[in-house]
Amino acid sequence: MARPGGRSARVQEAVHAAVRDLLGEVGRDALTVPLVAARAGVTPSTVYRRWGDLRELLSDVAVERLRPDADPADLGGLRADLEAWAEQFLDEMASPAGRAYIRDVLLGDPDGENAGRCSAYAAQQIGVVLERAARRGEPAPGVETVIDRLVAPVMYRVLFRPGRLDAAYAHGLVAHALAGR
Amino acid sequence: MARPGGRSARVQEAVHAAVRDLLGEVGRDALTVPLVAARAGVTPSTVYRRWGDLRELLSDVAVERLRPDADPADLGGLRADLEAWAEQFLDEMASPAGRAYIRDVLLGDPDGENAGRCSAYAAQQIGVVLERAARRGEPAPGVETVIDRLVAPVMYRVLFRPGRLDAAYAHGLVAHALAGR
Repeated sequence: MARPGGRSARVQEAVHAAVRDLLGEVGRDALTVPLVAARAGVTPSTVYRRWGDLRELLSDVAVERLRPDADPADLGGLRADLEAWAEQFLDEMASPAGRAYIRDVLLGDPDGENAGRCSAYAAQQIGVVLERAARRGEPAPGVETVIDRLVAPVMYRVLFRPGRLDAAYAHGLVAHALAGR
Repeated sequence: MARPGGRSARVQEAVHAAVRDLLGEVGRDALTVPLVAARAGVTPSTVYRRWGDLRELLSDVAVERLRPDADPADLGGLRADLEAWAEQFLDEMASPAGRAYIRDVLLGDPDGENAGRCSAYAAQQIGVVLERAARRGEPAPGVETVIDRLVAPVMYRVLFRPGRLDAAYAHGLVAHALAGR
């Protein structure tokens, strides 16, 4: 017997892959649910039933694209780990692709669930860095403090206040997040 | 002779007022450009020509709703001024109406211009508070520091990370923004 979860997961993967491919081939403005469904080998009604509309589908795909695929690098010290993570996070979020994904996440996400998942990804990565610091015996701030002092300013500037998004800015935020430990 | 700027400003005011009224009467989901145009006494093509589509119009209306209508209160000291401003800012942004406006701003704003205007409003208000502190001879951080340490965490949590948005949180951010002056 086929498990519904198995088919469900296969449909999701096929539809997400179709969106990713078509974004590259035809661009965001030409994307339609029938086009995505045809590429994924499902009916449009399957897509509408599961995702509601194109914006919600794009939001789900964007969250997957923003999901980190590896733990932060272990460079042997809290400041170095956090600086490396901050630089990479800033580069990804401030890139044209990153900005488009963040926008997609928010646009098709009326209840904030996907935005919350993005934030949880960042918190999980920071948690890994801070737990390593704790194991080394290094004093470290809490996850929510690093969210406020590092993640929030980067995301705010990406969305609302362009400019000032470079490695020096990321390092300044890290220094500040670690000050007075 | 009628000045085009005069008519243009009247059309904008009539269309914005129609959106504000209809949002209260029929709700966001039932709003359409023809409905707005009829209420404002203009043709739908006037609206399409000027705003592109409903989302861009909603974004413009939301920016106007988020524009502060007065300078921050002068309570005689930097910390008190900033705490009062932070509490009010947090209350407005975290309210259901505030969240809906922030969302509208971002959704109909592909080039980020309206988001930048929102950020400029916050920076202007903070600038007033900091200039007062300077006139009193109080040491004060710069505007961009207060943006990073106060505005960014509030806006990030409104959009991405629910919870923890109360006066105590606002006061903690202010204390932190003013630490080590």
